[in-house]
Amino acid sequence: MSLDALARTAYTADHEAFRQTVRRFMQEEVAPNAVKWDEEKIVPREIWPKAGELGMLCPTVPEEYGGLGLDFGYNAIVNEEAAYFGGSPLGFSLQSDIVVNYLVQYGSEEQKQKWLPRLVSGETITAIAMTEPGTGSDLQGIRTTARKDGNHYVINGSKTYITNGQNADLILVCAKTDTEVQPAWKGVSIILVEADREGFARGRNLDKIGQDAADTSELFFNDVRVPMTNCLGEEGKGFIYLMSELPQERLSIAVSAQASAQKAYDDTVAFVKDRKAFGKTVFDFQNTRFVLADLKTKLQVGWAHLDWALNRHAKKELTAVEGAAAKLWHTELQWEIMDKCLQLHGGAGYMNEYPIARAWRGARVTRIFGGTNEIMKELIGRSL
Amino acid sequence: MSLDALARTAYTADHEAFRQTVRRFMQEEVAPNAVKWDEEKIVPREIWPKAGELGMLCPTVPEEYGGLGLDFGYNAIVNEEAAYFGGSPLGFSLQSDIVVNYLVQYGSEEQKQKWLPRLVSGETITAIAMTEPGTGSDLQGIRTTARKDGNHYVINGSKTYITNGQNADLILVCAKTDTEVQPAWKGVSIILVEADREGFARGRNLDKIGQDAADTSELFFNDVRVPMTNCLGEEGKGFIYLMSELPQERLSIAVSAQASAQKAYDDTVAFVKDRKAFGKTVFDFQNTRFVLADLKTKLQVGWAHLDWALNRHAKKELTAVEGAAAKLWHTELQWEIMDKCLQLHGGAGYMNEYPIARAWRGARVTRIFGGTNEIMKELIGRSL
Amino acid sequence: MSLDALARTAYTADHEAFRQTVRRFMQEEVAPNAVKWDEEKIVPREIWPKAGELGMLCPTVPEEYGGLGLDFGYNAIVNEEAAYFGGSPLGFSLQSDIVVNYLVQYGSEEQKQKWLPRLVSGETITAIAMTEPGTGSDLQGIRTTARKDGNHYVINGSKTYITNGQNADLILVCAKTDTEVQPAWKGVSIILVEADREGFARGRNLDKIGQDAADTSELFFNDVRVPMTNCLGEEGKGFIYLMSELPQERLSIAVSAQASAQKAYDDTVAFVKDRKAFGKTVFDFQNTRFVLADLKTKLQVGWAHLDWALNRHAKKELTAVEGAAAKLWHTELQWEIMDKCLQLHGGAGYMNEYPIARAWRGARVTRIFGGTNEIMKELIGRSL
Amino acid sequence: MSLDALARTAYTADHEAFRQTVRRFMQEEVAPNAVKWDEEKIVPREIWPKAGELGMLCPTVPEEYGGLGLDFGYNAIVNEEAAYFGGSPLGFSLQSDIVVNYLVQYGSEEQKQKWLPRLVSGETITAIAMTEPGTGSDLQGIRTTARKDGNHYVINGSKTYITNGQNADLILVCAKTDTEVQPAWKGVSIILVEADREGFARGRNLDKIGQDAADTSELFFNDVRVPMTNCLGEEGKGFIYLMSELPQERLSIAVSAQASAQKAYDDTVAFVKDRKAFGKTVFDFQNTRFVLADLKTKLQVGWAHLDWALNRHAKKELTAVEGAAAKLWHTELQWEIMDKCLQLHGGAGYMNEYPIARAWRGARVTRIFGGTNEIMKELIGRSL
Repeated sequence: MSLDALARTAYTADHEAFRQTVRRFMQEEVAPNAVKWDEEKIVPREIWPKAGELGMLCPTVPEEYGGLGLDFGYNAIVNEEAAYFGGSPLGFSLQSDIVVNYLVQYGSEEQKQKWLPRLVSGETITAIAMTEPGTGSDLQGIRTTARKDGNHYVINGSKTYITNGQNADLILVCAKTDTEVQPAWKGVSIILVEADREGFARGRNLDKIGQDAADTSELFFNDVRVPMTNCLGEEGKGFIYLMSELPQERLSIAVSAQASAQKAYDDTVAFVKDRKAFGKTVFDFQNTRFVLADLKTKLQVGWAHLDWALNRHAKKELTAVEGAAAKLWHTELQWEIMDKCLQLHGGAGYMNEYPIARAWRGARVTRIFGGTNEIMKELIGRSL
Repeated sequence: MSLDALARTAYTADHEAFRQTVRRFMQEEVAPNAVKWDEEKIVPREIWPKAGELGMLCPTVPEEYGGLGLDFGYNAIVNEEAAYFGGSPLGFSLQSDIVVNYLVQYGSEEQKQKWLPRLVSGETITAIAMTEPGTGSDLQGIRTTARKDGNHYVINGSKTYITNGQNADLILVCAKTDTEVQPAWKGVSIILVEADREGFARGRNLDKIGQDAADTSELFFNDVRVPMTNCLGEEGKGFIYLMSELPQERLSIAVSAQASAQKAYDDTVAFVKDRKAFGKTVFDFQNTRFVLADLKTKLQVGWAHLDWALNRHAKKELTAVEGAAAKLWHTELQWEIMDKCLQLHGGAGYMNEYPIARAWRGARVTRIFGGTNEIMKELIGRSL
Repeated sequence: MSLDALARTAYTADHEAFRQTVRRFMQEEVAPNAVKWDEEKIVPREIWPKAGELGMLCPTVPEEYGGLGLDFGYNAIVNEEAAYFGGSPLGFSLQSDIVVNYLVQYGSEEQKQKWLPRLVSGETITAIAMTEPGTGSDLQGIRTTARKDGNHYVINGSKTYITNGQNADLILVCAKTDTEVQPAWKGVSIILVEADREGFARGRNLDKIGQDAADTSELFFNDVRVPMTNCLGEEGKGFIYLMSELPQERLSIAVSAQASAQKAYDDTVAFVKDRKAFGKTVFDFQNTRFVLADLKTKLQVGWAHLDWALNRHAKKELTAVEGAAAKLWHTELQWEIMDKCLQLHGGAGYMNEYPIARAWRGARVTRIFGGTNEIMKELIGRSL
Repeated sequence: MSLDALARTAYTADHEAFRQTVRRFMQEEVAPNAVKWDEEKIVPREIWPKAGELGMLCPTVPEEYGGLGLDFGYNAIVNEEAAYFGGSPLGFSLQSDIVVNYLVQYGSEEQKQKWLPRLVSGETITAIAMTEPGTGSDLQGIRTTARKDGNHYVINGSKTYITNGQNADLILVCAKTDTEVQPAWKGVSIILVEADREGFARGRNLDKIGQDAADTSELFFNDVRVPMTNCLGEEGKGFIYLMSELPQERLSIAVSAQASAQKAYDDTVAFVKDRKAFGKTVFDFQNTRFVLADLKTKLQVGWAHLDWALNRHAKKELTAVEGAAAKLWHTELQWEIMDKCLQLHGGAGYMNEYPIARAWRGARVTRIFGGTNEIMKELIGRSL
């Protein structure tokens, strides 16, 4: 089983060749270690440069900054194969699909020269610090401040739920450079903070329902001084920058959701054909076949939609609302599939030693992160 | 509102030009009469040749038989516009998407010469008689017989739920030419029966929940004699022929389902923005927006999938299982949308004078006809 | 099949004896005529006094006003048997469960003496006129006015969706006796309007999706003069009066919903055990049994809850929020059962000649009337 | 918040007084340790005698065997308070609601004298070993054998998913005393095996999605010799005995499911009223209130049904099918509530430090254990 036999429309032969490279990496470097990394609650740094060497990190970075100058389809393939064969979320997607774009789009030449090659090679691991304790996705309500002091910012505040928080060398911090301006979002800026700055501290690696290896942390900023050249783009434009990258972020989540759902489904078909109950296989029960038929149908629909969205995005036509819809739909589908597949495993499904249990635990967050699905509905609803 | 603004991928500019022709027909000839035809429980014959003149009937028939030799995309456009602007099922789809293919694929040269031009022009209206009282979709269990007598068949039996049953001039009758052979499906043949044959009688025009103008009838065959040259293709191959055309039949149902769902959605958005309740519009309630956002998301997904399926079908790659999945998914979506949209209309939704009420009643059959959705699941499940 | 075998907890032996009387009436007087009345779109007046003689109308009216002084359980039994065996909504429930209480609770001695005996006997048929075109359930927004002129009110306005609108002899009209007061609900009064008053006119008997015999109408009031003694209770208290009777109204809807769902279920079990498909009965398919098992489970839960609510109501402990929850839950259940049962009928389910089709059409309104289920959620949500 | 304010109908004042004792125990002895026990993946033995002293273990055991001779309502109250205030499954329910009944019903006088007082006091912890690797709930397919050798059985086989497997002192083992007889279930017997018997070994304490403290283990039997007097009741009647106790087992699961769902709901109402987002509380969004209103409605329905079932069971009228329906319905409800409540927590819901995360993980097994909900549907379906 793999993602090869599907009737896809988003990829070229070059994409598919790249897929084989990625798959080998996932099968050889990631899958055998997935359980261990989950137990250690961290993905080792060493895996990043290995992935970098194979072109799996930030493939869209222009060649002048050390990248391959490829399209987002390469990112999508990394996500698909990681979700299908990796078995453990790696944190690559955050760097390749989200963070790097802020630098490419809005970074100063100096920032690009300095950071982009390191993001591509895997030398530098990045994080983006938006959420604060108690604010959720509400950027306007953030309380972290970046006060100007000479030609420096002095940053104070705390963040939580930060992916790659333990591993990160460079953090894009959303902070208020102006706490007075109205509307409040005009005061938000994005500041680059290197992890070795004084006053920066990592908090707990949070204990989550799943995706154990994907370190998710609190971060603390206590009078952290950074030069004003660390501001990404213009002051006060942080909110707009963040909005501009949302369609790709949401599409990226949709890609992983769809691929992981396919994996759970494929595993489950194999399981029920093997497992005996009451003198036949579980597959032999009409209810099992009906459940699986329904899921297969939805997966077919999902791949068609995903490719439509990828093709739209490749032509820069995917709207924010369409991206929100993709995030909403594919993560809801992912959950439906995970939960029904777990149920078809019976008692085994509740045991962490079975892949479905880990996949199921891991999947629960996708309806929440990247903006909850309720926020997606609110965004889509407002657009009508 | 129309189907123009969607980001479709299945159609060329020629298709879209044709769409405008079809739309005008639906808006001018069909929509103003839809309620009346529903009350009369029949679509008048006169509409057929008008549609034929515009190329709307059986557009895929080769030019040598009076057709336009176009692809199925033209059929799909007729279905879409009929579902969106027509407001009344017309019976065209049965002729253009299903019946005509049997003749094109399996008909003798004589049968093609005689019938195809008339199907294209609308001079002849066709039906296909499969279901019998008590047998549902189970073709192997049919009891209608076609006994050989010299160079004639003598047909006896009764059929029910026959679309176009009142208007039909030519009926493709599924009958057993061999009642002994095992497996039983090898005894099924398709026989052309002209409506003026002695012994043929139309039964009641059945009183249905919706789609009132789409006459659906019982048909009776009492010693109906037809020459053996009226057999379509080979004797005993009826079952195989029927199976071969199922993907297109199911795709055709999916097309109409998706377009009618879009119409209900568009109407409902307009309704709730207009309707006041408790001092604001119904749209102003978050629940309304959430429901609509969810439906809009699913419609986006649906169009992407439909185009994927249409493109697969255009390349003759759409499998029977994929077609079944399309029928299943789009008709379930259609129903979900119809029912939620009716609810958003409040009391108005229950009144037949509102389009949503008629659309809702009409939509309930699509999860049943063309093979119930349970049969779709059984087919898909068996393929795993 | 009947409602006898259920493990109920709300009824005494006297209730159950009464049930047999009601059942006979439904089986003998109502069921044989249900289709005809649907076609005529009205229940004949003659049925009312027959029901009255048997004690089926307004059983809770005190004996001094010609009633039997019984508890609401007797109302509930009428609703259950009507829903199970009647097959046609009769309008009794509106009079017995809703309208009569306003008179009993808030009527003047004169009003009670005059009207209660006639409501009990079935001589007088009543309606309550709340909804106006465009206002839905929003009583504060009504535009019908009752202007004082000497010792008369002069009523002007129009109403819609009025149950019993064609048959009604006496209409309780919600009108504004004060259009200035704030908050606006303090201006609403309930005025008794006899149908023979000049200026009163019945509009169309509305064409609905189902419940055809339950006449639902527009009503027009054009300078209708009624004496001020026709005001129910105190002026300006209409809103409060209406609120006070809502728990019973909603419980009444829940009762009918549950019983009609049980009927659809029972009919469907019989149907699928009889109907053959693919060489066995439809019941023999595991999917069928799973669907039915799920519905049977929910019916069991439903009866338990209904009896809990009836017992609470008998002790006057049922809160408005609990009543709203009952209306919400039982009507949603009713719909789920109706729709799944129709589906199990296959093509037959779409034909109006099958009871499931009529029941299904009739059931669609219960999520809407008596306050939409969205309003129920809003009420419950506000109480948290 | 507690379970006190509900309008229950199953309990007397004595029950409710007992509830306060249980609650104090859960709040003082259990809740403060729940996280620790989860980490240790075991509930310490010391808690059992403490519970025993308070009458919380096996309250239905007759006084002559050291019990209190109470009704199942006392068991239910322990389950409710454990689910609501305990926060950690304790294994009591298995002993009190299930295992002890086999001894009371079918045990020899000697067995009763020996074991019942110890089960009541908490000196002895029990388990029941049915499931085997690969057989699920299919008792007829078990491969563990109890071969007769003189006046002993020699037991060989392995079991899995055994609750209390690490703590158990006494295990009721389902084994085949006759491997030839047809039908196969006639060969199944229940044998008491003390944990200190030679040849008995505990396997891994399985790593589960949730309910971490509820040790669930593999057990191995390698030529374990026990005297024939250890057979429970008659040889070959094991299957019948197991069937006879199923209604109570399933009702017990339903009780815990309902109470834990109420807890998740109560916690969530508090959470959303406190948590701010976009300038208001999460509760202030209509969607939040609608979701909670829907859940509150279902909880109301659930309590009514649960009490109906408890009352039926108290009168020994609850049928196996009704018990199966209760297990099915309440565990499905529990899951719906858990999952929607987690979602309303946003990112916090995914963090194990929040009670909802642990409750959600714990709840996932209830649709699986005690017979999967698919088996419940099969049982109910067969009864129609």
